[in-house]
Amino acid sequence: MGKKRVMVPAKELDLSTVKYEKETIQAPHLTGSILKLFVRIIEIPIIGSLIISFMKKENNMVEMLQNTEIPEKPMFKPEFPPQEAEPSVVIVDEEGKPTDRVESALKCLPHYDPASCWSGDTLPSFRYWKIRDFAYAYRSKLVTPSKIAEQIITLVEGCKYHKAPTPLLISFDAEDIRKQAAASTQRFKEGNPLSILDGIFMAIKDDIDCYPHPTKGASTWMHEVRSVEKDAVSVSRLRSCGVILIGKANMHEFGMGTTGNNPNYGTTRNPYAHERYTGGSSSGPAAIVASGLCSAALGTDGGGSIRIPSSLCGVVGLKTTYGRTNMGGSLCGSGTVEIAGPIASTVEDVILVYAAILGSSPEDRISLKPSPPCLPILSSLENVNILGSLQLGKYTEWFNDVHSTDISDVCEDVLNLLSKSHGCKTIEIVIPELHEMRIAHLVSIGSESIRSLNPDIEDGKGVKLNYDTRTCMALFRTFTASDYVAAQCLRRRIMHHHLEIFKKVDVIVTPTTGMTAPKIPPSALENGESNMQVSGYLMRFILAANLLGLPAITVPLWC
Amino acid sequence: MGKKRVMVPAKELDLSTVKYEKETIQAPHLTGSILKLFVRIIEIPIIGSLIISFMKKENNMVEMLQNTEIPEKPMFKPEFPPQEAEPSVVIVDEEGKPTDRVESALKCLPHYDPASCWSGDTLPSFRYWKIRDFAYAYRSKLVTPSKIAEQIITLVEGCKYHKAPTPLLISFDAEDIRKQAAASTQRFKEGNPLSILDGIFMAIKDDIDCYPHPTKGASTWMHEVRSVEKDAVSVSRLRSCGVILIGKANMHEFGMGTTGNNPNYGTTRNPYAHERYTGGSSSGPAAIVASGLCSAALGTDGGGSIRIPSSLCGVVGLKTTYGRTNMGGSLCGSGTVEIAGPIASTVEDVILVYAAILGSSPEDRISLKPSPPCLPILSSLENVNILGSLQLGKYTEWFNDVHSTDISDVCEDVLNLLSKSHGCKTIEIVIPELHEMRIAHLVSIGSESIRSLNPDIEDGKGVKLNYDTRTCMALFRTFTASDYVAAQCLRRRIMHHHLEIFKKVDVIVTPTTGMTAPKIPPSALENGESNMQVSGYLMRFILAANLLGLPAITVPLWC
Repeated sequence: MGKKRVMVPAKELDLSTVKYEKETIQAPHLTGSILKLFVRIIEIPIIGSLIISFMKKENNMVEMLQNTEIPEKPMFKPEFPPQEAEPSVVIVDEEGKPTDRVESALKCLPHYDPASCWSGDTLPSFRYWKIRDFAYAYRSKLVTPSKIAEQIITLVEGCKYHKAPTPLLISFDAEDIRKQAAASTQRFKEGNPLSILDGIFMAIKDDIDCYPHPTKGASTWMHEVRSVEKDAVSVSRLRSCGVILIGKANMHEFGMGTTGNNPNYGTTRNPYAHERYTGGSSSGPAAIVASGLCSAALGTDGGGSIRIPSSLCGVVGLKTTYGRTNMGGSLCGSGTVEIAGPIASTVEDVILVYAAILGSSPEDRISLKPSPPCLPILSSLENVNILGSLQLGKYTEWFNDVHSTDISDVCEDVLNLLSKSHGCKTIEIVIPELHEMRIAHLVSIGSESIRSLNPDIEDGKGVKLNYDTRTCMALFRTFTASDYVAAQCLRRRIMHHHLEIFKKVDVIVTPTTGMTAPKIPPSALENGESNMQVSGYLMRFILAANLLGLPAITVPLWC
Repeated sequence: MGKKRVMVPAKELDLSTVKYEKETIQAPHLTGSILKLFVRIIEIPIIGSLIISFMKKENNMVEMLQNTEIPEKPMFKPEFPPQEAEPSVVIVDEEGKPTDRVESALKCLPHYDPASCWSGDTLPSFRYWKIRDFAYAYRSKLVTPSKIAEQIITLVEGCKYHKAPTPLLISFDAEDIRKQAAASTQRFKEGNPLSILDGIFMAIKDDIDCYPHPTKGASTWMHEVRSVEKDAVSVSRLRSCGVILIGKANMHEFGMGTTGNNPNYGTTRNPYAHERYTGGSSSGPAAIVASGLCSAALGTDGGGSIRIPSSLCGVVGLKTTYGRTNMGGSLCGSGTVEIAGPIASTVEDVILVYAAILGSSPEDRISLKPSPPCLPILSSLENVNILGSLQLGKYTEWFNDVHSTDISDVCEDVLNLLSKSHGCKTIEIVIPELHEMRIAHLVSIGSESIRSLNPDIEDGKGVKLNYDTRTCMALFRTFTASDYVAAQCLRRRIMHHHLEIFKKVDVIVTPTTGMTAPKIPPSALENGESNMQVSGYLMRFILAANLLGLPAITVPLWC
């Protein structure tokens, strides 16, 4: 009795009463044989659910999901009210040819003259080659895709012999790359490249189909039960632009982790510090771009899986608007939070790749009917100070709730810089119900993940999962249908709060993660690691974009 | 191992391989103290879930939800592809005034001259008064709303003294009715009725707010935790047309049953046979119309709750398209299957009431964006044989799978009559995956119901529920989040199958229920009844409309 909690309707919530509450996660940090033992215990039918129930209570999940009257109706997928077109954008045709969209995107980019940066047949100082650098080099016959292919093949094959092996790719086929590169080289020879992306090398995260590679989601068995007969929709769009696909990039098993730890194929190491994680789950894609192996990579993001590794590896990652990309042919194509998106070394390269892959699925066009996709006309930045009119929303208490103030200080410096150089205004905002948002996200992604894996788990594949995946599964299995619907009611509340905020500001600015790349405990390499505190820090600022389907970009400070 | 079942994608399903499977439900028929004992046992934590698990396995629910790979993405709410406007309809403005829509609807009705039916100040033979009869009588000063009000008050108050009391209303306030009737009488006196619905008496199901009455959902406690401060949206639309609201009609507790059994306020009895059920859950609304007390009533329908009692009581019930009505202010306003809809004695009265209440909620306009609402121009039937061009789809094996062939024979006769008199064509169809559809519906409505009641159940209200409601709750509580998502994947499949069928036919014809009104076991009056076989028969033909959000109408054979 007296357990019931009643939320006031979201639109009646008085923001002046909202107090920021630091996130505290109560869960043990487990690696090695302790993790193995823990998993065995929580998988014992009744005892296991009692332990998980206790942990859910400790983390204030139960009260919210079961005892709280939430006045809002469920919102099962992100719903956006109709929007007016923004200034300085070009609308692109999502049903048109990817090459046409890439062409439009190219026109939006600021002026850049690769020739002026080159001295002889190389770029003078160390920096990532932009896509336009490659395009210039190919068109100027300074290099051919086939030549680059050989360098990539040598580098990837060399990785095996490193002291600390960093398995960037799970599936790699040198002959397939050579074939694609030869075709691209031939197109340049004939003067008929398909687009600015022709001859550009990209890696594809292992949860997206890329024929003829298997799709394993970094597991040891998914390819045995699910065959790949063609490219995923987004991959086929890249291929139609001439992109050369080097193989399937490493990841956290089924995307169910934030570090990139992977006992099945080895843990990808951070290119900037080999003893540290890349972050996950798109560990391979981010590391491949950060190490300069490819211009770009395709990742998926359901709870930070593009943004966390991009941030920890110092590259640019775009979490696209939900439903903007067609998830056909990916392992996480049935959820309500996951999207596919590009990782690259610069914002402009992200835009080029995004232009190629965008275009929603026919199903999403019925239920979501998003406003037509558009690209920012960055070239107009040179003449007009668009940035200056931007209102940046900052929830300072949240912004500063990080593992080390180095992070918030440095991000604060960026805001000051933007203010000084462009006149951007930073506006203080309050985002209520962050705890509720985290629960709604966890229940949504967890329930949808376990649904898609359940038939195989019931079929005996559960014991073949990594131990940290199994801890997730044990938790997800306890979510009831009622919890799931409650989470969707919370989604509508959180959407309301954010739409109110976006009436006042154009962007919400935060650090991408609440901590820098964590060290890899040696004991975690063989059996994995479960560290919810680290996950909490890595996902601290990330989840609203997934739950609400909003776009989000992570940009390294040097960019 | 080997448990996994893989469904072929819905669009690859070969219909020629589909075999009709008779529905068999394995569950005990329980009433009286045996039902009480059973409920106590299934509510014991571990033992209860084991029993429910066993019953779910017996009814082939577990395999479908847990072990089956369903290739379709979830469809959380009914999604309709854009539709072309149908011929002979008038589009009405859902944002306009209800009185204007009722005016448009009136123009659509076939010609009818009440005056020619009247002899002196009464209708010559026994039949239900149509809304147009009342309108004529009021406008011709043959009677006033106040006079009718007194008759209704006398009848309702007299009900208490019947040998077999049939509690039609849960909340009734004679003074409130007199006040409304006096206002309406005054409007007629001044020659300013608000619409054709002015002075028309209607009852509102007890799960829809109708101020100043409490909303109990036929429970003993809901009004203690939820106060009513204004009319539900649909009720306020009716009131704006001048409708006189006589009170809150009886129903199955929280709509969780198909018979209308109600130990809390007494079970409404079938006006045509007092020893039989009315059907449910809108038992009161259907009985009130069938007994001639009101011209129409407002019900809700999430699994047949309008159509079953309308059918069993021989009146017309309309299950509106999902999202077409605004569910604001009803207890079942957060689900993905429930709608509000009218019950009346004739199709034309159903159209008039529907025109008043239609208009989707702002939320649904974002996510559903249904095509604009329209009404059939029945008046044109007099000149053009629209019916003749209708293609009626009939799945004969299903059509004939009824408790007694009397039902299918008589429905067959109607089809033959339609064919002879209008030239309608009946086309044989096959509807695959009826079992899957039932499961998807049960999991959806069950999960959404328990979510909305959970905070109160956790707060100690669970033991105040009726015993049959508690059996439902014990089942719904076992649905996992994964089950819920699986059910939504099934929803997309079933939608595909139906959209394919609707390429070939305009309407699917079935009996409304698979049995006629069942007898009320005397032992069920005090403690309720759980009879899944009867529910199976009553819901046999009904669920697709709810799961897919399709409109459906039940029309008695004499109509």
